[in-house]
Amino acid sequence: MDAAALWQRYQDWLYYHEGLEFYLDVSRMRFDNTFVEGMKPKFEQAFKEMEALEGGAIANPDENRMVGHYWLRTPDLAPNPQLKQEILNTLEKIEDFTQKVHSGAILTDSGSKFTDVLSIGIGGSALGPQFVADALAPVFPPLAIHFIDNTDPAGIDSVLTRTKDRLSSTLVLVISKSGGTPETRNGMIEVKKAYEAQNLEFGRHAVAITGKDSKLDQLAKSESWLATFPMYDWIGGRTSELSAVGLLPAALQGINIQEMLAGAKEMDIATRIPKIRENPAALLALSWYFSGNGKGEKDMVVLPYKDSLLLFSRYLQQLVMESLGKEKDLDGKTVYQGIAVYGNKGTTDQHAYVQQLREGVSNFFATFIEVLEDRQGTSPEVEPGVTSGDYLAGLLQGTRQALYENQRDSITVTIPQVNPRIVGALIALYERAVGLYGFLVNINAYHQPGVEAGKKAAAAILDLQQRVIQVLQDENAPISLLVLAQKAEASDKIEAIYQILRHLHTNQRTVVLEGNLGQPSSLLVSTI
Amino acid sequence: MDAAALWQRYQDWLYYHEGLEFYLDVSRMRFDNTFVEGMKPKFEQAFKEMEALEGGAIANPDENRMVGHYWLRTPDLAPNPQLKQEILNTLEKIEDFTQKVHSGAILTDSGSKFTDVLSIGIGGSALGPQFVADALAPVFPPLAIHFIDNTDPAGIDSVLTRTKDRLSSTLVLVISKSGGTPETRNGMIEVKKAYEAQNLEFGRHAVAITGKDSKLDQLAKSESWLATFPMYDWIGGRTSELSAVGLLPAALQGINIQEMLAGAKEMDIATRIPKIRENPAALLALSWYFSGNGKGEKDMVVLPYKDSLLLFSRYLQQLVMESLGKEKDLDGKTVYQGIAVYGNKGTTDQHAYVQQLREGVSNFFATFIEVLEDRQGTSPEVEPGVTSGDYLAGLLQGTRQALYENQRDSITVTIPQVNPRIVGALIALYERAVGLYGFLVNINAYHQPGVEAGKKAAAAILDLQQRVIQVLQDENAPISLLVLAQKAEASDKIEAIYQILRHLHTNQRTVVLEGNLGQPSSLLVSTI
Repeated sequence: MDAAALWQRYQDWLYYHEGLEFYLDVSRMRFDNTFVEGMKPKFEQAFKEMEALEGGAIANPDENRMVGHYWLRTPDLAPNPQLKQEILNTLEKIEDFTQKVHSGAILTDSGSKFTDVLSIGIGGSALGPQFVADALAPVFPPLAIHFIDNTDPAGIDSVLTRTKDRLSSTLVLVISKSGGTPETRNGMIEVKKAYEAQNLEFGRHAVAITGKDSKLDQLAKSESWLATFPMYDWIGGRTSELSAVGLLPAALQGINIQEMLAGAKEMDIATRIPKIRENPAALLALSWYFSGNGKGEKDMVVLPYKDSLLLFSRYLQQLVMESLGKEKDLDGKTVYQGIAVYGNKGTTDQHAYVQQLREGVSNFFATFIEVLEDRQGTSPEVEPGVTSGDYLAGLLQGTRQALYENQRDSITVTIPQVNPRIVGALIALYERAVGLYGFLVNINAYHQPGVEAGKKAAAAILDLQQRVIQVLQDENAPISLLVLAQKAEASDKIEAIYQILRHLHTNQRTVVLEGNLGQPSSLLVSTI
Repeated sequence: MDAAALWQRYQDWLYYHEGLEFYLDVSRMRFDNTFVEGMKPKFEQAFKEMEALEGGAIANPDENRMVGHYWLRTPDLAPNPQLKQEILNTLEKIEDFTQKVHSGAILTDSGSKFTDVLSIGIGGSALGPQFVADALAPVFPPLAIHFIDNTDPAGIDSVLTRTKDRLSSTLVLVISKSGGTPETRNGMIEVKKAYEAQNLEFGRHAVAITGKDSKLDQLAKSESWLATFPMYDWIGGRTSELSAVGLLPAALQGINIQEMLAGAKEMDIATRIPKIRENPAALLALSWYFSGNGKGEKDMVVLPYKDSLLLFSRYLQQLVMESLGKEKDLDGKTVYQGIAVYGNKGTTDQHAYVQQLREGVSNFFATFIEVLEDRQGTSPEVEPGVTSGDYLAGLLQGTRQALYENQRDSITVTIPQVNPRIVGALIALYERAVGLYGFLVNINAYHQPGVEAGKKAAAAILDLQQRVIQVLQDENAPISLLVLAQKAEASDKIEAIYQILRHLHTNQRTVVLEGNLGQPSSLLVSTI
């Protein structure tokens, strides 16, 4: 395509939202009009299904749930007055609680103001809050946030060591929809012990964000925690950033959550328009479908040229891959769907893996995210007439152009600045794009059967560990792995037993291994 | 494969390094003996080429350079006594400088001890130090480290705001091999201005790590910086973690760099063995080749189950993708090589994209990294007989097993703990695996032509910006984009001009745009 034709294509496809000062360029996705025309019937169907979803239809059939994250920013759309009132009440409660913490109306049990927030949650209960904290929290926020987002003992120790001197003025958020997520539960138990070790009352520092009547809800009630905020069964973890899960930590850090909601609402309005060219979420879904042939044949590489958006790609990784990565479609057909997502930030990544994007295996399309505002205030010159921000902008343009010249497709999202309204809009944009794409490829974008299966598999390992320890305690002399497995009635699981033992042995948990650790058949096992 | 056969396969392929207590399991890569036999001649050749590389052969032909990162940990292997002495001298200088900073023999110009390190570098000059800081630095290190790894003005502001009160006791490392990397240069200029704004002498806080006689070397000399450490032309950025680039910041944070080098040396010895089954780097390269058919057809997903290894996947992303992502092979044939790498950490990722890995598009193989030691000290029970670490181990095993059952291949690396020696060994392991794989697919793993091309493309955009501003300053009345492009003699670059103007306009840099910003043809442009 010559320069004039490319410039025309750019202008033809450029999407601009004046209110949000938001641009979307899909001109470097090399689809043609025949492809777009061919997609129109699929999109008409997807727009209808999206409308039904927003109206309260059961859009997550195998969990028999409504999908209502759009109602969070437009409560008037909630399918009944009770839901609407619940959304409004929760929002009011978040703002009221935050105001009381900031003003000192709620104090620690020693009478001082809270200084820190420790958020315990995993997956959808961590990635959104982490992304938003990185993107929007001031350098010195009213409360500094820390995250325990795993069941790694060393990781928990690291956070507890860092916050040790301020534990007495730290507010702990425990975030789990089911209230039974083991990683979160484990983090909570260990943190509680840290409070007890300092003779602090954990309940006076603890806040639950959880489903009504969950185990966690009951615990919070029984221990008189400071507060409890609801997670609704019509909100999935990966779309919960604009529920209490994301809004409470954001508000505590001094981030304007009304602006986040307003930006999301504005983007929701823009992405409800049932015309591909006038709907930025549809343009994204169209581009993804084109690039991966509707089967995820290309990875989505996300390149925000702004340090504070570093975690956006990780946030999208969850939103996109957990929503779209499905074995079965809605008709029960095996489809192995999904789109792999990765990325960090430009220009840093240009000095890392962009070498491969430019020249190597052509198994991806890129999404550039450009932020027009360089910084608050003016910039010094680094060369006559040139600023650091000019370099950032120039490097983005240069890379986008080079990818195009090497037949690598890209999308460019351009935003005016990184502020609460725009971050809300970005979240809403991608939620909608994922939803539309899910309908295009006929999958349930709102469940995660593989995650449940993973939990079960882990529970089976823990159960096996208990049986193995029991057998060993009943033995008088060291036994081989083979004998141990037989006695534990798990002869088909010798390898799992070997791995369990290696772990227990290293952590001095009563298991003694004699022999060559690298030759499992040589080992003799006993307890201390 | 039934349970007994799988257990046999596991034992047959299990690699164990007793000294490092390091395990590598490739039994879940479903290659057969025919494949392995077929690969042997390629490996024999690769082992020979690797030996020549270590002996000082020109292994980076188009840059006419030796590739010597292995010499850093075994200076006796350096191809001549002078190189050996340089390596030893630099190491001594790093330890001497660090000792003086820690002890207070080197003080700030106000006579106090240094409290912080601000590292300015990008790509290979940032990813390694960031990974190592995250993995190994104590929670309260002797000097706390901060990174400026981009030319993002807002990102620079964020770091400078955070360190503002301690700038007078902050040591600044400026890391650039060529001394001309624009992102690093820009960061340095802005940081220098911050020092000047506080009436602090920048040179009294600054340390250069750069090539001999580079621009940066000359600047450091002319301004009498505190110290300069060399980057050798036989070390590439992505393999520089065990040179001054990585060792100086590590040492300043109190990390034992002799242990890092010792671990790398031990792994180097293990990965020099010219037999696939006895060489863990060869086992990795074999597995990668099998999975991607020698063409990178599958992504490498890296899943360390340990918070402190979160950045290992980003480090590997650079090492693997920048090394292997090449258009041409060594014979000049177009091959579009590479392997895409991404990942964060388990179990967190199990609540995110692992849904797709388990059930969705089967375009990857996983690398699990298991750390046997849960934490220093004992763990509380979260259930009778069960610890947080048991969950972490169980979730890893469960996921690995589930992937296997769904025909998704995986590698498992098992290490005893995250310590300097093991981190050094991991770095050496992957450096060697990438080197061997590069030879297997016949590419130059040690250059990065695409990165250079990206810099040139950006320079062209900055040049165009200057011409556009010049044209506008010479005009008396607003003009259209079309006219502006003609006058700038860049009629084929209207889109680039539009994007330049949008950026300048947002940052109030003398450019005025009238019309609809989303309709470029409607715009009239002028200067203030």
